[in-house]
This record gives sequence, C-alpha cells and structure tokens, in this order.
Amino acid sequence: MEIERKYLIHTLPENYASFPCRQLEQGYLCKEPVVRIRQDNDMYELTYKSKGLLVREEYNMPLTKEAYEHLKGKVDGKLITKKRYLIPYGEYTIELDVFEGALAPLKFAEVEFASLEEDERFVAPDWFGEDVTFEAKYKNNNLI
Amino acid sequence: MEIERKYLIHTLPENYASFPCRQLEQGYLCKEPVVRIRQDNDMYELTYKSKGLLVREEYNMPLTKEAYEHLKGKVDGKLITKKRYLIPYGEYTIELDVFEGALAPLKFAEVEFASLEEDERFVAPDWFGEDVTFEAKYKNNNLI
Repeated sequence: MEIERKYLIHTLPENYASFPCRQLEQGYLCKEPVVRIRQDNDMYELTYKSKGLLVREEYNMPLTKEAYEHLKGKVDGKLITKKRYLIPYGEYTIELDVFEGALAPLKFAEVEFASLEEDERFVAPDWFGEDVTFEAKYKNNNLI
Repeated sequence: MEIERKYLIHTLPENYASFPCRQLEQGYLCKEPVVRIRQDNDMYELTYKSKGLLVREEYNMPLTKEAYEHLKGKVDGKLITKKRYLIPYGEYTIELDVFEGALAPLKFAEVEFASLEEDERFVAPDWFGEDVTFEAKYKNNNLI
C-alpha cells in the first residue's frame, strides 16, 4: 500500500540542483489500473498501481533493458521524461520531478507516508504549491 | 515464489470432464520476464513471472474487463485459449490444461509445491506423460 501526496511546484528551491538526481523515462500500457514501464537511470521496471489517489496498491517488478525496449513499442501516447531530485526534509525524502520535453516546465513534488496519521501530521515546506493529490488530471498517466 | 512441475499429457483420464473447469484466454506482452494477461472465466488479471523454469517469482494483479480488452490489443502473436480442469490428487490439485484452437490437441498437467522437498517427494499419477518442466519450448509464452 502506498500513501503519497503530490504538490504543484511553481518556484524551485535555490539549491535543488545540488541533490541526488535520477533521469526517468516512462510510458503507460494501461491507465486504470496503471500499468507503467519506467527507465530509472540504468534500471528498468514494470509497475502496477491499483485505482486510487491518496492510497493505492503498488507492485514494482524488474525488467531487462530488452524487455523495456520491447514494451516501449506498446505504450499509449507518448513517453514522459523527467529529472527526479531527492531532497531530504526532516524524516521524509521529497521527490521533486522536473518534466522535460512536451510537458516542461511542469514540476511536482511527492512525499510518501508510512501511515495515514503521518500524512495528517505533515507540514509542507513553503516552496510547495497547491496540493493536487486528489486532482486526477495531474496524475502522470493523464498527462500523456 | 512459485515451484511448479509440468507434464505432457497424451491420454486424458476417463473422468476428467467431471471436475471443475475454467475457460482461460491469455496473451503475452513480453516473454522474459513474462508479462501475461489472462481471462479466467469472468476474472481478468495481469501476471508477471521472473526468469526460471522450476522456481520463479510470480505476481498476479487484477485487471478490469476494460483494461484486459485494452491490453489485448498489445499482445505478441496470438491469444491462447484452453480449458483448465482442477483435479484433486492427494494433498495436491492437478491443473489439467486442454488447449483449444491452433494449439489443440496439446495437453499439459501442472502441479504446484510449497517447497523443493515436496517437489522431490512427488509421485506423479500414471496418466502423466513426460516431465517437461525444464523444456523451455513447452512454456506457454513459447507456444504462441
């Protein structure tokens, strides 16, 4: 089970480029449930996510490069590319996604929680924009 | 983790049609790792199986009918259809697959074990043909 909040970002924090960064490419085979392929640096995976916005079941399964390239030919619409910065914030790690290509200059931050209680207690940093967790149009699979 | 043996069947046991039977349709999005979609009566699922013959990681994830129909358009090669009979055998349940369409009259029996020790102790019934567990050509994803 995954409990995750998502925020729009309008202004990047000054030091964001100093944090660890991964290059992501991803595409969708199905929107609901989500069946996604992703390249994360030199790692490849297939992800399944059940229906839901704040809480959902998620499975991540490894793919070979060859399997990824094969499945890439089957995605709906376009591939998404983005840079993901991992920014420590108290006990959490903020995932800051900076989109490239057709979706630039879109930016999101995501924070994952171990429980709904943690989620309720969470105080977002001041550079976070609107909480769009419950706005389906901002889900990656609806952006393509 | 799944531990499973597979046997060719040449002659069906006399009473096979009296056992519970499910109608299966399945197709493959990827061969290695296996990414499979399957309709099992009115249930739909996505399955991921890691590399391997006797032992492999397996994840089964529910699909809606709509998601199944969508993913059906992405399979490699043809769909497989078969009837699966569930035949009790001591503490085990034999899955007897009787293929239809282009793959008829092919027939397999599969037995799943909780441990490698169970697998070693297993004595197959006399109507089982050759053990083809380690023959990759008999994997469903190589039949298409």
